[in-house]
Amino acid sequence: MSRPSTKPRSGMRDFLPRDIARREYVVSLVRRVYERYGFVPLETPAVESLAILSGKYGEDEKLIYRILHRGEALRRVLDRAENAAALGADDLSEEALRYDLTVPLARVVAQYGGVLPKYFKRYQIQPVWRADRPGKGRFREFYQCDVDAIGSRGRIPEAEVLSAVSEALSELRLDDHEIRINHRGLLRAVLDVAGVPEDLGTSALTALDKLDKIGVEGVRTELRERGIDDGAAARLLDLVAADEDRGDPKARVRALAARLGGVGEDVAAELAELFEVLDVTPAVGRVRFDPALARGLGYYTGAIFEVRLTDFGSSVAGGGRYDGLIGMFGKQAVPAVGCSIGLERILVVLDERGLFPPLRVGPDAVVCWFGVPAACVLSVARTLREGGARVEVFPDAAKLGKQLAYAAQDAVGARFAVIVGPDEAAEGMVSVKDLESGEQVRVATSEAAALVARGPGALEAPSKAT
Amino acid sequence: MSRPSTKPRSGMRDFLPRDIARREYVVSLVRRVYERYGFVPLETPAVESLAILSGKYGEDEKLIYRILHRGEALRRVLDRAENAAALGADDLSEEALRYDLTVPLARVVAQYGGVLPKYFKRYQIQPVWRADRPGKGRFREFYQCDVDAIGSRGRIPEAEVLSAVSEALSELRLDDHEIRINHRGLLRAVLDVAGVPEDLGTSALTALDKLDKIGVEGVRTELRERGIDDGAAARLLDLVAADEDRGDPKARVRALAARLGGVGEDVAAELAELFEVLDVTPAVGRVRFDPALARGLGYYTGAIFEVRLTDFGSSVAGGGRYDGLIGMFGKQAVPAVGCSIGLERILVVLDERGLFPPLRVGPDAVVCWFGVPAACVLSVARTLREGGARVEVFPDAAKLGKQLAYAAQDAVGARFAVIVGPDEAAEGMVSVKDLESGEQVRVATSEAAALVARGPGALEAPSKAT
Repeated sequence: MSRPSTKPRSGMRDFLPRDIARREYVVSLVRRVYERYGFVPLETPAVESLAILSGKYGEDEKLIYRILHRGEALRRVLDRAENAAALGADDLSEEALRYDLTVPLARVVAQYGGVLPKYFKRYQIQPVWRADRPGKGRFREFYQCDVDAIGSRGRIPEAEVLSAVSEALSELRLDDHEIRINHRGLLRAVLDVAGVPEDLGTSALTALDKLDKIGVEGVRTELRERGIDDGAAARLLDLVAADEDRGDPKARVRALAARLGGVGEDVAAELAELFEVLDVTPAVGRVRFDPALARGLGYYTGAIFEVRLTDFGSSVAGGGRYDGLIGMFGKQAVPAVGCSIGLERILVVLDERGLFPPLRVGPDAVVCWFGVPAACVLSVARTLREGGARVEVFPDAAKLGKQLAYAAQDAVGARFAVIVGPDEAAEGMVSVKDLESGEQVRVATSEAAALVARGPGALEAPSKAT
Repeated sequence: MSRPSTKPRSGMRDFLPRDIARREYVVSLVRRVYERYGFVPLETPAVESLAILSGKYGEDEKLIYRILHRGEALRRVLDRAENAAALGADDLSEEALRYDLTVPLARVVAQYGGVLPKYFKRYQIQPVWRADRPGKGRFREFYQCDVDAIGSRGRIPEAEVLSAVSEALSELRLDDHEIRINHRGLLRAVLDVAGVPEDLGTSALTALDKLDKIGVEGVRTELRERGIDDGAAARLLDLVAADEDRGDPKARVRALAARLGGVGEDVAAELAELFEVLDVTPAVGRVRFDPALARGLGYYTGAIFEVRLTDFGSSVAGGGRYDGLIGMFGKQAVPAVGCSIGLERILVVLDERGLFPPLRVGPDAVVCWFGVPAACVLSVARTLREGGARVEVFPDAAKLGKQLAYAAQDAVGARFAVIVGPDEAAEGMVSVKDLESGEQVRVATSEAAALVARGPGALEAPSKAT
């Protein structure tokens, strides 16, 4: 048999230790911020039944990873089929991989409604799978960081979700993040007043959403191509694009509402209220009203938001209010507002901008040895570990030079070698060598742990050691 | 359409916040110990190609979750098939869910050999999927905590793996864990000397492995049923079961070697050496030689081990040396030794024994409010968070009693309510209420964070506050 390819599947990735350190840095920081806001963690299985997933993702449903029936169940289907061509995916599978974290949340709320608090504020950071065409920054297995507040129709949960996301991005030192906010109700009112026919509304919004990328004339052309007459297009663009400058978002929302002549007044008041409360949160100054923001997903019912960075083409987070979705598996509607941080994009930006802090990967020291029994070496390692150092032991008897060369490799990640030879062993000492500077000192084994755990510079400035 | 079931798939589980806190407690402790030993993390995709997975799991291969072909690829197979009955799972899938963490490790070592250090010490804690019949403690999605040292044939990595596992179990306060050790080479020698025919060797070991559960007579009966003659069975049992008492494992290994008359002498020396070095590690005193230990998996080539607790029927960890597996996708053999902790079993035991420490889930406090604007409430929450408290804000205007009742619910997990009314707001104060004792104090908002972050008893002993 030919040797199979050992690459990961297309669009999927192996995470080596350094990759994991970076991912962990972001994930643990985001979790910490979310928990500061009272959000609690939830995890759901990778596999969901197709009865739960079907009909939720429109034409993207074809991207779902389905699980093939097994054993008898598969045999039965195949043996009973009149002919193979009459079979389809639905005959061959009844479960599939998680496609997002929102539908599982809806399932969980329906299943454990009695156990969960009425206001369920959960975050969920888990991979999802989509058989999309892989590309730069687009993967088939990728993590979502969702944060959602279930159970209230008010502004407070909206402000809390946005504030938590903003605080997380600030702590990641993405200080240029900007939160664009709009409201589905306001969009509906705008389309209405502009005279866009109702059946073309969604199509018009898809064009409008590109305003940032293709500009006013680009959108005008696309609206025409989508069958919206020039008069309606002009009115639409006049309403949403005329006011592209910044400024107090509350005032801008009210100004738009005034131009709409009463239509959407309630919605505008709601949105102004959101801007007002955001002023006292850490998101203050990051918030902008964007009347052209549409967001693709059809399920939003109220405020919608998108977080962008100044020099990064796509959004790094997005979300909104969706009062119709969480209740879909239960008996009553459950209001909800949420936001999802795009972990993979954040990682790209932090890397491009050099914003990762120094992240420790691998041991502090490798114990290298010669002329002493293995038990002596393991005993030194134990002392070092008990002293708080992270220690690898060179596993085989090899020349010391070879051991030190191994320890100094970037792939190992150690800063120090702790050398144990017969002289050292006889005196209860070890030699600690800084693998970067080459400096070397001999210390009592009991003192070595504190030295190597101190990291770079530990040997150069012994006077500062205490 | 009828409402679909919202239960997780059979054998799979939703993890609610309290479940996650317990899992996180174990996983982060285990990770910390593994990293102390210089092991580094690895993660691989959930989906692997069947070319990688096939032929690795014997008859358990039928338990693999296969991914159905999508779109055109599926259509092509179905349309070209002569008849459906001629089709099988291999025609309908080419990728599948990860079944264990060892085969992906072998793939990673082949793929990134040039980047990884020669001695690659990795741990991997991720879910695997097996379509096994679900049962008590047996799941279809479950986590494995694997720790493996690649690249050396020596005793040091074996001792390091066992020591790390033992230290992790000790830190989890599973102080009664016992590590049973045997050697595949010794088993082969024993079978040989006992006169068990070579083709019945594996079958004999399967019976022998049950010695603990069914006793000497049970094994004798089973050996007979498996076609091993009574003489060979008696000699086999005499060699491995006669010496069931404890005692210095090194001496016991040497005694067995002496009885084998030279066969397996090298192996016995190797095993005695392992016992000797283990004496200086934290595993000292936990180690026992068990000449009847066989371990099911066929791929072990050297030392094998299994970790048990006194009152728990099945093992909580197991592993061994397997020098033939990691190199299977590459050009040369790669020696390896590893161990896997059974996370799900550990969780069961810690729960049964009440060994989980108090784990914080949910916010420290819920901010409850009346007669003040939402912005005022969010501003208080911000101050509390900046002071280091984890805070949820009651999202809607409701009667204070209702808010307090919500905050006091076990499902919310808060110990305190922070109450903001018009009086408090006017003075820059809040009332902090201990939801368990009912005690309530009014303090400056700036002081409330330290109070609620202190947890139970914070209000009772204000003199100890500083």
